[in-house]
Amino acid sequence: MTTDAQQACFEAGIKFGSLYHQFAGTPVSPRSTRSLETAIAESIENQPYCESVTVDIDDEAVAADIDHENGYTELSGHLMEVDMRVAYEAVTVRTRMEMEDGYPLMKLVGVVDRDE
Amino acid sequence: MTTDAQQACFEAGIKFGSLYHQFAGTPVSPRSTRSLETAIAESIENQPYCESVTVDIDDEAVAADIDHENGYTELSGHLMEVDMRVAYEAVTVRTRMEMEDGYPLMKLVGVVDRDE
Amino acid sequence: MTTDAQQACFEAGIKFGSLYHQFAGTPVSPRSTRSLETAIAESIENQPYCESVTVDIDDEAVAADIDHENGYTELSGHLMEVDMRVAYEAVTVRTRMEMEDGYPLMKLVGVVDRDE
Amino acid sequence: MTTDAQQACFEAGIKFGSLYHQFAGTPVSPRSTRSLETAIAESIENQPYCESVTVDIDDEAVAADIDHENGYTELSGHLMEVDMRVAYEAVTVRTRMEMEDGYPLMKLVGVVDRDE
Repeated sequence: MTTDAQQACFEAGIKFGSLYHQFAGTPVSPRSTRSLETAIAESIENQPYCESVTVDIDDEAVAADIDHENGYTELSGHLMEVDMRVAYEAVTVRTRMEMEDGYPLMKLVGVVDRDE
Repeated sequence: MTTDAQQACFEAGIKFGSLYHQFAGTPVSPRSTRSLETAIAESIENQPYCESVTVDIDDEAVAADIDHENGYTELSGHLMEVDMRVAYEAVTVRTRMEMEDGYPLMKLVGVVDRDE
Repeated sequence: MTTDAQQACFEAGIKFGSLYHQFAGTPVSPRSTRSLETAIAESIENQPYCESVTVDIDDEAVAADIDHENGYTELSGHLMEVDMRVAYEAVTVRTRMEMEDGYPLMKLVGVVDRDE
Repeated sequence: MTTDAQQACFEAGIKFGSLYHQFAGTPVSPRSTRSLETAIAESIENQPYCESVTVDIDDEAVAADIDHENGYTELSGHLMEVDMRVAYEAVTVRTRMEMEDGYPLMKLVGVVDRDE
């Protein structure tokens, strides 16, 4: 009723939604971007079928978002790029979050089924 | 490179991951289950391609989770069932979260492509 | 070592931090503001010592935040005002979140100790 | 109308509520406990008046929570201990989250006002 490729894409979507809504809103400043990138990646890599996660938080964008009084901002889609690879049975799915026309988009970059 | 059905499954996964990681941890008691169900469903229905979301929080399971001193517990997968329908181009995807062998599972229930 | 008034203020802070970081990032549109307000208030009212929570999400601010393609935005401090009353022993604490100089601030509005 | 000590306790509570509801639900396994501890501490230390945060996630408790099929669990209060120090004007507040009678409690450990 559903194919391995469809299941793999569903799993990839779950990881992206999880990543975004678990960590969006996290207080962040240029002092804490590296530790947050690592924790996000290692956290989501725990989920089933997730082979690798790379998170790049843009230090300059974070700094630009910070008002002088507070000294921090909240993690949001326009501050990071994410690459993820999910493998389910013989299928590998690559996904990416990046800005497009001013908005963060979660994209299905490629689906490869080694059984085809 | 990717099919509409794969894209639809990816979008369905995003909604499920978003729903779970946005709302897991929310303080809940039998007094607040109905308002939380409604807010979760209406919130996720805002997302693109999301046609309908139904959330059932199990009042008896919530009550059983509550210790007497606190009077509330935190929303978690074993306390709710979720049904979701996502439509992308000619494809409709149905998904469901329910308990299986004691663990909450997010499942791809069906994928229908009206162009096929 | 600590007074009831200090404990009451600590409890009030916990509720505010909980409310903000549980619900910030929630997808919201003018169609879903009322259900989200109710769910947030009823959820946090479950927490110990929390007497009442009122959440006002600003429909016009939400609409102004929405880009045309997506149809929703994410809940954030500049979109809502919150009033909360916490009671601990003989102390009642009132707190409020509102915009000040363009930033959302959580404020301790008043502390009344009926034993003084 | 409010004292510096009360304001300091309110700020300390905000940090605790923020920490808990931002990070509860994060996928965690013994492979990712150290990076998550660091990211939580550095994230919350960005908030105003927050002098130091120490997070100890209990590897053995995490391992005990993991079911064999999944390989991860979700961060929750019974898996970690947190110590925090908040300074507001001349007041320093120490707080701690730890298990008590089987439940995680956020405690106000000490309030010191150097002006008194």
